[in-house]
Amino acid sequence: MILEHAIITVRPDSHREFEAALAKAREVISAAHGFGSLRLLRGVEAPDRYLLLVEWATLEDHTVGFRGSPAFAEWRSHIGPFFESQPEVDHYDPVAGLA
Amino acid sequence: MILEHAIITVRPDSHREFEAALAKAREVISAAHGFGSLRLLRGVEAPDRYLLLVEWATLEDHTVGFRGSPAFAEWRSHIGPFFESQPEVDHYDPVAGLA
Repeated sequence: MILEHAIITVRPDSHREFEAALAKAREVISAAHGFGSLRLLRGVEAPDRYLLLVEWATLEDHTVGFRGSPAFAEWRSHIGPFFESQPEVDHYDPVAGLA
Repeated sequence: MILEHAIITVRPDSHREFEAALAKAREVISAAHGFGSLRLLRGVEAPDRYLLLVEWATLEDHTVGFRGSPAFAEWRSHIGPFFESQPEVDHYDPVAGLA
């Protein structure tokens, strides 16, 4: 398993619309090959900031398979309009025995 | 539930020692009031960077209870020697239906 870790800052006062859009976008991403799970959490110190955690079977399922598919444009079309800036995306590998 | 989210950058070539220290430190933090779970993951793009995710019952269980207890110094004594810089710590609140 590889964890996609994205910090998404949304436009002020758009959090309800963004969360509703993410619920629709989840239907798109959850059909992707290698998708495992998705969690969305909202910043306590910075309420316009969200943490998106997506589990993928492999790194390439996200970076090649999903990003290279038509579904990626559909995913982004739901949530992209609420982005204040480009999301910061990286990936993490579970440490054996600690994850 | 509140998620503590910490990005920890460790000194180069210290990752094995850091991971072993974190396993010991987990015994300390897991006894704290309100502790739920802990996960450690290692950066794919930046292998000296770790993502630490700790679930707490409430924000104050972390920021007041744990940080104000003697256990916090013990926790830090295990893992602090491997920090390249101060960890970046913030907190996230699960979005209902999406976390």
